[in-house]
Order: sequence, then structure tokens, then C-alpha cells
Amino acid sequence: MDFLIHLNSKSSRPLRDQIYDGLRHAILDGELATGARLPSSRVLATNLGVSRFTVTDAYNRLLSEGYVAGRHGSGTFVAPSLAAAPIDQHPPIETYLPPAPTRAWSTWSDRAQAVGELSGPAPQQEIDFRHALPDLSHFPHAVWRRLLVRESKQVDLASRYYGHPAGWKELRVALAGYLNRSRSIPCSPEQIIITSGCQEAVDLMTRIWLDRGDIAAVEEPGYPRSRRTFATAAAEIKRVPVDHDGLRVDLLNERAANAKLIYVTPSHHYPTGAVLPLNRRLALLEWARERGALIMEDDYNSEFRYGSRPIPAMAGLDASGSEPGSVVYIGTMSKVLYPSLRLGYLVVPPDMIDRVLMGKEVSNRNAPHLEQATLAAFIAEGHFERHLNRVRKLYAERRRQLITALDEDLGSIAQFDRSISAAGLHLLVGFDLPLSADEIEAKAASVGVHLDSAHGCYEQPPELPSFMIGYASLDEAAMRDGLQRVRRVLAA
Amino acid sequence: MDFLIHLNSKSSRPLRDQIYDGLRHAILDGELATGARLPSSRVLATNLGVSRFTVTDAYNRLLSEGYVAGRHGSGTFVAPSLAAAPIDQHPPIETYLPPAPTRAWSTWSDRAQAVGELSGPAPQQEIDFRHALPDLSHFPHAVWRRLLVRESKQVDLASRYYGHPAGWKELRVALAGYLNRSRSIPCSPEQIIITSGCQEAVDLMTRIWLDRGDIAAVEEPGYPRSRRTFATAAAEIKRVPVDHDGLRVDLLNERAANAKLIYVTPSHHYPTGAVLPLNRRLALLEWARERGALIMEDDYNSEFRYGSRPIPAMAGLDASGSEPGSVVYIGTMSKVLYPSLRLGYLVVPPDMIDRVLMGKEVSNRNAPHLEQATLAAFIAEGHFERHLNRVRKLYAERRRQLITALDEDLGSIAQFDRSISAAGLHLLVGFDLPLSADEIEAKAASVGVHLDSAHGCYEQPPELPSFMIGYASLDEAAMRDGLQRVRRVLAA
Repeated sequence: MDFLIHLNSKSSRPLRDQIYDGLRHAILDGELATGARLPSSRVLATNLGVSRFTVTDAYNRLLSEGYVAGRHGSGTFVAPSLAAAPIDQHPPIETYLPPAPTRAWSTWSDRAQAVGELSGPAPQQEIDFRHALPDLSHFPHAVWRRLLVRESKQVDLASRYYGHPAGWKELRVALAGYLNRSRSIPCSPEQIIITSGCQEAVDLMTRIWLDRGDIAAVEEPGYPRSRRTFATAAAEIKRVPVDHDGLRVDLLNERAANAKLIYVTPSHHYPTGAVLPLNRRLALLEWARERGALIMEDDYNSEFRYGSRPIPAMAGLDASGSEPGSVVYIGTMSKVLYPSLRLGYLVVPPDMIDRVLMGKEVSNRNAPHLEQATLAAFIAEGHFERHLNRVRKLYAERRRQLITALDEDLGSIAQFDRSISAAGLHLLVGFDLPLSADEIEAKAASVGVHLDSAHGCYEQPPELPSFMIGYASLDEAAMRDGLQRVRRVLAA
Repeated sequence: MDFLIHLNSKSSRPLRDQIYDGLRHAILDGELATGARLPSSRVLATNLGVSRFTVTDAYNRLLSEGYVAGRHGSGTFVAPSLAAAPIDQHPPIETYLPPAPTRAWSTWSDRAQAVGELSGPAPQQEIDFRHALPDLSHFPHAVWRRLLVRESKQVDLASRYYGHPAGWKELRVALAGYLNRSRSIPCSPEQIIITSGCQEAVDLMTRIWLDRGDIAAVEEPGYPRSRRTFATAAAEIKRVPVDHDGLRVDLLNERAANAKLIYVTPSHHYPTGAVLPLNRRLALLEWARERGALIMEDDYNSEFRYGSRPIPAMAGLDASGSEPGSVVYIGTMSKVLYPSLRLGYLVVPPDMIDRVLMGKEVSNRNAPHLEQATLAAFIAEGHFERHLNRVRKLYAERRRQLITALDEDLGSIAQFDRSISAAGLHLLVGFDLPLSADEIEAKAASVGVHLDSAHGCYEQPPELPSFMIGYASLDEAAMRDGLQRVRRVLAA
């Protein structure tokens, strides 16, 4: 034999497969040329010290896959069928591979690489002030698991086959009830489309609404992921300033006159926490209606208001007028339940439903079933709103504790807007120090504390190095410990 | 009072919320003008027959949301802040709504509407020959549920926070092992990206690879969903004929010379079931490498081969050469487990990983966690391949039963390629009758039988009205019953 088969008796790969591998490579590498005769199974078995059956099994596989052909009584040969392919006129494949081409990526991908940022590994610090982190220890795991098991016993076709692109009907019914009760959005289940979190909701709407060169207005500072999604779609980004009351609606004409889309976080501006007051909401609605622009209302953190009742969503104000609505509402379960659930939803005006459904169908057909069904039961049986009420109290208390701790432990350094509405899972804090945000983050990390920089939200860095300090998943002792560590390392 | 509040004591909405709703609408509708004084809470409570506390609660909510303002000692007024908005110079919102504009959808959405097809409701027939349906009664539900419950007890941050865009690491490790063992694809876990089924895999690769006007070659006939995805991306579609051995690779230069992408189903051509032989695979690889074109290998139904071992995937042949690879491999769990799991995956050449990850990040960040973790354990503990081996035997037997039943019950009518490889979950059958596929489908439905037309796969209708007859989820008695009903109604 002019080729070698290496058998590794310790490999988990069966010997017959190792023989198959060796022969296949010898054929593809040209060591066994077209028409070459393979050793008889008896000879090869003896040479390799394996049973003849092991070898014939490998030969049969090569035969069935067309690598070799058997001529009855005269042995096994490298398949002539390979000779019929153009490839036989050339030396073995590897030798005529062209040099590695530069891949011709799409312009969409080029833009994604240019503006995007891959999720890095999660922080691994002892004390983690990550900004969008709910307290998992207060999630009703046992209740959820009971419902999960119950729903997993549904093995009928409706539960196990492809679903409707809008999502599991019971979930849409449950969400419509919740949105009517708690967010004053008079929507029907038909207007709700289940997505994979907020990101898919933003991307899906972007696909069906924005063309290259269309203008997308965003808040400045603002949520970087949504801005990047619009930029990746080749939209022209116009940044509209935000003040203590959120988006400066009065500057829309000056800064983003022809916007086709405006993305806002009215319940809890990202990252400042400002709440858009009613008069600005109404003015924004009017502005959008007059132009046929779409308002993308990311109702992020609306569930977490601690001072007063939530202001009705813009989608609710919008629906009080006539058709067609100007607001597409985005909700997510990432903060109210947990992020890896990957469930979010869109509420769209009735005339937009068909377009969104088709977009979803092309993107990924529909969301997975089991956790949709579990969430539907979780809402319908009242666990969802009970859970929200419980963690709302918990987070309100933790927010107070954070503010006290900031005052007592970092009083001379930490600056934040004391009049901002008590809401959300984080507080935006500037550090009055001659250090960059990166330097502060690194120093904090050196003493086991993770701080989330807010600078990705800004076009121009804010006056002070600023952080979105999450308080929802830390108890008071951990917060104090963390801030004291930060103070010590910053003083050093 | 010059406005009315309707209270419905039978509504599940609390009275205070009904009062709030009524007042809010009166304000927004202009019945209560800016500066107007609201009745005192005592008066309104008396008028409405509710407690004073109920009314003050509603007033407080309106106050906190900025609809009204309270002047200490002098009552509650419709908020002057509303007067600061441009809206106050106009009559109430509804009266100056512009006529419904024609929505300015994106061209992507326009194309999706033009070429797309929304998933209809699932067939509801008594005997269902749906073509891509695994037998759910043979799924190891108890084992799966045990793993699901175990994994659901992981409540640490790694399991519950946002995940890596590539997916759950343990699942990628398990899949890489499976692909190495069973599909001869020497990939590493890093090359695997978890998607929401095959559809997201195709769409994601399309986004990062195709620009408007790029040429995408597809099989004719071929899988309509992938063709529609390329068309929605504004790619120019070139159809390359398929014969008994799958794609006519020798016609590529003539039919799709400058294709940037070629989509193939080599393991089991959709819909004919043809298997692409080795020499065509090698020629296709060479063709793609020379041009820097990408082969999208949809390895659909590769797990279900009944006659011989699976032919190694093109991704495996490709990897035996040098960098860069030309094959992007697509796998899905929809048929081997069940569709509503919504788990599929891409295996990409190493230099493509970063691009795909960024595309996934923009699209929807990452797949949900729980069922990824469950599937990882299901594969790692050997259940997956045991399940495959079991159903492979079952479906092989059912395929034989279907063929026997076709011969015996529809012999004079049913035409199919008897030499096609025994593989997949359906058989492509033409009906030698002077009827259209729609007519046959309707007749079958009239006797409680669902047949899947294959005509969506063809540019020109096939000679005979043709159906993809699924056999995996029907036992022999049901198949016979179904075919006999069809024969009777077609003879009638």
C-alpha cells in the first residue's frame, strides 16, 4: 500500500470510521488515484490488525457514497464516477486552491462591523453594578417552573408545529390584557407580535420601515443599540437633544425635520432616566402625524416607576385618535423577568400588522413555543403583576439605599440629578474627578467592583465621566461595600 | 359638569381607573378645556355614587401625569402645561388629523409582500400527509422534560443574563461533536452559531452576504422559503435545473455564471429527494472556490437516510481543503425534534465567524437559553442520537408502507421516482389525472385528507399535479385509509 491509515485505539471514533476516514482522505488527496485498486478487505484487515468485518463496513460506506466502485470478483477501485467530474483533469484539490480571496461581504455587514459592538463577556466582578440587571433571587422560580412543566406536557401539533408568525395566541391575549390594564394601551391581541426581545423588535421595524438614506431621529444621549441598528440599515442618523424632561420635541424641526422614524424612551429615558411629560408626548404625536413619521416607543423600564403611577404610554394616547396610528410600541421581558428568556413584543397600529408579520416570517418565522406558553399562563394567572408589584417595592427601596450610600460614601465625588423621577433599574451618576470613565472603570475593577460606563450613549462625552449604576440586584451591604471600595481606590 | 363619566360596576377595571379614564378622555377631547376647573372630589364622588377616596385617587393620578394641576386651596384645573405645547392653539386632536397617509414602507417590505407568503393556519384534516412533520408520539418527552426541569434550575447569571451571540457554549460543543461524528464535518464549536431554525440561518447569511442586485443561484425546483428570502433581499434569482441526481452543476456556468451565492439541499433535494453524488459535490466546491462564491448547504433531512449511510456533508469535503472555506452549513432541529423548538444552527468557515456574530447581534442578540441548555444535555447524554436511530427505523418502515400503499391503492394514478434514495420525511408523487393540484387538494380535503402541493417549488408547474406526501407521522392504517379516500374521491 502506498498510503497510510493511522488507527487510534483510544479514540472514541469507531475503528471502521477511522478506516473510512483514512481511505477517503487518501482518495481526496490523490494518494489513491482514480481507478486504483484498493487492497482486499482480508489483506487490509490483517495489515491493520482488525476484523475483516470492520474493513468491509468501511468499504461499503465508501461504496454507498460513491468514492469507490466494486467490480464483482475483481476487487474495489477508486470510483470512475469521479473521473466524470471536471475535477479529474486537475491535480488534487488543495494544489489549485486560489489564494484566499477577500470576502465580498454585503454593505449591511460592512456597516454592522463599522458601527456595531459585539456583546463582550459578562462582568465577573465581586460587586456588580451592571445597569440592566433584575434581581434573579426574587424571581418566582418555583411558580415559573410549575407552569413550564405543565406547558411542556402539551405535545399536540398546535404546540409543537410551526407557530403563527405573530406568536402564541394565548400570550398575545394575556399581554393585551396587561397593556390595557396597566399601560392604558387599548390594543387587541391581533396588534401584538412576539419578538426575540427588544433588539428584534427594533430591527424588524427598521427592516420594514427604513430604506438606505432615510432619516432616523434618536435621542442624544440615547440607547446605542437602537442607533446602531438604524445606522446598519444605512439610515441617516439625526440626534435630537434630551433635557431634564427627555426629548426636546421643540427641536425636532430644526434637528430632524424630515425624519421618517423617531426612536424614543419616554417612560425612562436611556440613560438619564428622564420622563417625557404629557405635553411633549402630545406635541410629538402631532409632529409625527403631520409627517406620516413613525414613533418607535421603547417602553423600556415603564414597569419600574416608584414615585407615581406610570404615565400612559404614547401608544395609548395615539390610539385615542383616529386611524392611522403613528406609534409602534416595544416592550420586553428582559428586565421584568430575565434577559435570557429572549421575549419581547411589538404593538402596532392595525394597518401595519400584515407588514410586520411578513417581515417576521422572512426573518425567522416565529418565536419558540414553550416559554411563550409559560409566560401566557404566568400573566393570565396573575403571577406577572404580583411579581412586578413585589420587585417594584424592592427596587424602590434599593434606589433609596443607593442614593443614601452615594451621599454618605461618595458625597464629594458623585453627581446626579436629584429631581429625576424615581424609576428604572439604574441611576446615572457623574464622578467629579480628573479621570476618564475608562480609568475609573479600571480602578473600580481593580478592587472587585463593576461599573457600567454611560459614554457609549453620547456623541460627545458628557462633562463628567458618567456611569449607569444599577441597584436592582444588590442589597444594601453590597452597595455600601462597593461604593466604599470605589472611594478608597479613587482617593488613592 | 359638562362632561360625562360612565361607570360600569360590572367591569373588571377598578372604579378609580374608570374615573381616571373618563376625565383623561374629557381633557384630551377638549370637553374639559385648558384651565377648566374640575369638580371638587366631594361633589364628583356624590354625583357618581362612589367614595371620595376613589375620586381623589383618580385626581392624584391625573396630577402625577401632568393632565391637571392643583392649586392649593382652590381646586384642580386642567393643566396649564398643556397650553405650553403647540397643540393648545388647535382644536382637539381628532379634528385636525390628516387623512390616512399611504404608509411609506421600505423597499425590503414591499418585496417581502410581493414574493412572500404568510404561514397559513395548519391543516386540520383527519388524515394529515403534511410533508415535514416528525412523529411527535415517538419523541422522548419524559427524558426531554427531565432535562428541561434540571436545566431550569440553573438560575445563575450565566444562564439568565444575555448570552453570547453565537449561542449557549455547551450546545455548540455538543453539536460540534455530533457533526464530527455523524456528518464528517471537522468543525470546532467556535464555528457554530445557534439560530432560530433554518429560516433565520438563511436570512442572517443573506444579510451579511448579499447586496441588492447580487446573483443568488437556487435549485429549480427548489425550496420556496429560501428563494423568497433572497428575492426579498433584492438579489437576482437564477434557477439552475435539478435532475435525478440533484443540482445540474454542469449548467452553473450557463445559468448562473456570476452567482455570489448558491443554495443547495444536497442530502435530500427539496422537493424531489435527489441526493447530490460525490462528483457533483466536488465539482460544485471547485466552481465556488474559483469564484469566491458561497455555497449555502441546507442539510435538511440529512439525518433521515434509510438505504445507506449519509454522504459526508459538503461542509466536510470543503474543510478538507485549505482556507478559506466556501461552504456555510445549515442544520435545523425542526424535523429531528420538533418545529416549535425553533432551534437551528450555522457552521461557517473560521474567517466568517465575526461577521455572522455581528449580524446576529444586530438581528436579535442571541437565542433563548433554556431549550439550548436542554438540547445540549440531550445531545451530550446520548439521547439525541438514540432518538435519531429509533425514528430513522420507524420512518424507513413507514416509507416502505407508503410506497406499498401507493402501489396498491393508487397504482394507476400515483407516479413517483422509484429509484430515488430512500430518505427524508416525504415522497414526491405526481397524480396522473386531468386535474390541477388545487383541485386534487380540494377533493382530498373534502374527504378529510390533507395533501401538500409541491407546486410552490416550481417556476413552471410540473407535468403532473404533484404532492409532497409526508409519511413520518402516520401509521400504516391511517396512510391506507387516507389514500383509499383519495382514490375514491378522485374516481368519483
